[in-house]
Amino acid sequence: MQLYDLELSGNCYKVRLFSALLGVQLDLVPVDFLGGEHKGPALTKLNPWGQLPILIDGPLVLRDSHAMLVYLAEKHAATAWWPTDAAARGEITQWLSTSANEVQNGPCAARLVDKFGYKLDKPAALQRSAHILTLLDAHLQHHDWLALGHPTIADIAVFPYVALAGEGGIDLTAYPAIVQWIARIKTIPGYVSMPGTEALAHAD
Amino acid sequence: MQLYDLELSGNCYKVRLFSALLGVQLDLVPVDFLGGEHKGPALTKLNPWGQLPILIDGPLVLRDSHAMLVYLAEKHAATAWWPTDAAARGEITQWLSTSANEVQNGPCAARLVDKFGYKLDKPAALQRSAHILTLLDAHLQHHDWLALGHPTIADIAVFPYVALAGEGGIDLTAYPAIVQWIARIKTIPGYVSMPGTEALAHAD
Repeated sequence: MQLYDLELSGNCYKVRLFSALLGVQLDLVPVDFLGGEHKGPALTKLNPWGQLPILIDGPLVLRDSHAMLVYLAEKHAATAWWPTDAAARGEITQWLSTSANEVQNGPCAARLVDKFGYKLDKPAALQRSAHILTLLDAHLQHHDWLALGHPTIADIAVFPYVALAGEGGIDLTAYPAIVQWIARIKTIPGYVSMPGTEALAHAD
Repeated sequence: MQLYDLELSGNCYKVRLFSALLGVQLDLVPVDFLGGEHKGPALTKLNPWGQLPILIDGPLVLRDSHAMLVYLAEKHAATAWWPTDAAARGEITQWLSTSANEVQNGPCAARLVDKFGYKLDKPAALQRSAHILTLLDAHLQHHDWLALGHPTIADIAVFPYVALAGEGGIDLTAYPAIVQWIARIKTIPGYVSMPGTEALAHAD
């Protein structure tokens, strides 16, 4: 399996992190993001969205990090991370949607402005961030993990851009249950970091 | 199964449509959306996000339409709509993410402004709409269905707010492959409409 990868992308990191937790080897193909390689003809042929990551496994090409989490879990029968019963999959999938929408357009967007100079509406991104982080913190006050009482791909999907929120100018210490959840994730055997995730507040 | 429902919501319609296609009975609970019932104490206890739809099945409460599609497909072993192999699920899941993010924040957001008076950034919503509808049209020029060459929950997820784009001021005739795909979806046995989906351009 090849992952077209950017080290500083939280979406790429989701896939690197989950692969590490599964003990699955990925062949990382670094992409010249600042040079716009992901918008060039070779990579837009693989992913017309012009985004990273891209996962290649034989004839299969996937363009979305959540799809990659589901694919890896199914391929490797990782039923602890993605249990087989319908209710569990429903519960987890709602967090994949939260990651794709509220987290992507909240803390991820704020970071894209501050760290990469994207011309996005930063005040709107901060407002969306406050909304979703408040909901997330309230949920985590009563749950150690996002779904099912144990780590699942829901946590892997939501974790990166929440843990990187400081790089978008968001102070996570206002969300103590989130800070504790971040610390909890880092204790999962096989956890790997990315630049930015370790600079954050921790649980004490 | 109870669905807390708003007839004019495309997210609620996703669940009504898929249930109809599966021949599954839903008990619809109409919500007083204009009166803000979805933001009131009874419904935010079920869904802290303060949104519709909400699906209740015994002890299970789901708050996201994509999660409901996965749940219904798994519960009813609808393997044509959600095949069991890993690659197929990866392919479908990437369209669930597209629905949750690009479609929600593009054509859905434009419609929320025009039809319900939401104070969202309409020019930004139209720009995002043009971006995703162009990608979608390009994909559908070479594919009859979004994934796997046959109807899946990917189509059910993306269809509603694309079919309703005209209610957000978007002219779908600029996207002929999308118009043909909409017509194709309406031929699926068991298809049901919602207000707005039938006013649209058709394939001839």
